[in-house]
Amino acid sequence: MAENMFLFWGSGSIPCWKPMIVLEEKGFGGYKNKFITFSNKEHKGEDVLKLNPRGQVPTFKDGDIVVNESNAICEYLECTYKDKGTQLIPTDKAKRARVLQRMHEAAANMQQKLVLDLLYYFFQTKEEDRKEEEVAKKVEAAIEELDRWEAYLGETKAFVAGPDFSMADVWFYPIIAQSIRMGLDLGKFPNMKAYYDKVTARPSVQKSWPPHWKEEPPMISPFKGRI
Amino acid sequence: MAENMFLFWGSGSIPCWKPMIVLEEKGFGGYKNKFITFSNKEHKGEDVLKLNPRGQVPTFKDGDIVVNESNAICEYLECTYKDKGTQLIPTDKAKRARVLQRMHEAAANMQQKLVLDLLYYFFQTKEEDRKEEEVAKKVEAAIEELDRWEAYLGETKAFVAGPDFSMADVWFYPIIAQSIRMGLDLGKFPNMKAYYDKVTARPSVQKSWPPHWKEEPPMISPFKGRI
Repeated sequence: MAENMFLFWGSGSIPCWKPMIVLEEKGFGGYKNKFITFSNKEHKGEDVLKLNPRGQVPTFKDGDIVVNESNAICEYLECTYKDKGTQLIPTDKAKRARVLQRMHEAAANMQQKLVLDLLYYFFQTKEEDRKEEEVAKKVEAAIEELDRWEAYLGETKAFVAGPDFSMADVWFYPIIAQSIRMGLDLGKFPNMKAYYDKVTARPSVQKSWPPHWKEEPPMISPFKGRI
Repeated sequence: MAENMFLFWGSGSIPCWKPMIVLEEKGFGGYKNKFITFSNKEHKGEDVLKLNPRGQVPTFKDGDIVVNESNAICEYLECTYKDKGTQLIPTDKAKRARVLQRMHEAAANMQQKLVLDLLYYFFQTKEEDRKEEEVAKKVEAAIEELDRWEAYLGETKAFVAGPDFSMADVWFYPIIAQSIRMGLDLGKFPNMKAYYDKVTARPSVQKSWPPHWKEEPPMISPFKGRI
């Protein structure tokens, strides 16, 4: 089936990484793909725009079916290929509730507080224009969020939604990985540190690891010395 | 089953309205619930915090199962009660792909451009501090987004993801309804106007309509005269 799949993706994009982990977990590791570089604006190229008028990656095809939004691709793959590879959304009602809750909690809260609010502030604000009081407020919200997930992991002693790796980890882990790249120190978050090491070692994560992270240092380190 | 369900909700909250429409569409109209008022900070009350440590609504219970994030509640209800009431996420692979795509496209883009960026700017910035050039930029992005969905509706001639009402409409419609309350004129969006009238008339929407919208005028009208 993997030979009928095609993914346009960029390196270090959390939205791209999520479906890439799912593709590996579901056993579609050999899917066709095209790596695009953001700096050359290849996501605005004709081949992407034909399938995704927003000119964004990930852009995904499964045969004739096009799915673009990263969360939609993840859910599409899990629903459509339920019985292939790792089951990422449980069929048991209570377990499914927990996984869905943590998926959307990560998407709404972790993404907002660690990526959109804090990290993007650094990406989008010149060094000389950054206000320390603004940063302090955002850091405080990020720590509160990290504490919350640290407690969840203390309860499960395994993955963010329970004893098994699930879609909630797919939506949560790349945010932590990116934050660590940007200087987050997990010293004060021992459960998350153990979790991070365990998930990082998964073949699905290793195979989809952002290639430029292995070679280039981060452009900014907003968390360094702050969290 | 509805008698085992319980929802904490607030009036005029898009996150609350979404699962409320789903509950009606799935035939759980008689669910127990508690209306909380934001101005009295009742979402930070003990009864909510016991189930939802974030102190947010919607907070939902189905028997012993607690689900909190609005998108998670919607998906939980659809997955768990697939065969009850309206099917909101199709089982057909291609149709499901389209519904998932539009659901997450609405959540990511419409919500960002019409609610988070523009509407919240007005909510959170005092009148004297608002910059017209900032508003103009946000309005332009909102119009581009509205044009896109106007085109989608021109293709389907029905609902946002195809001929049938789906979860994509549940995630999309409340944003339009709130925008209209805030002064959006659909004069330039005839497909969306027809769509809005049709969805507004649905019993699920009528039964879950924000009660205070019927009585109180909006506090701000950011779209008035602008879109």
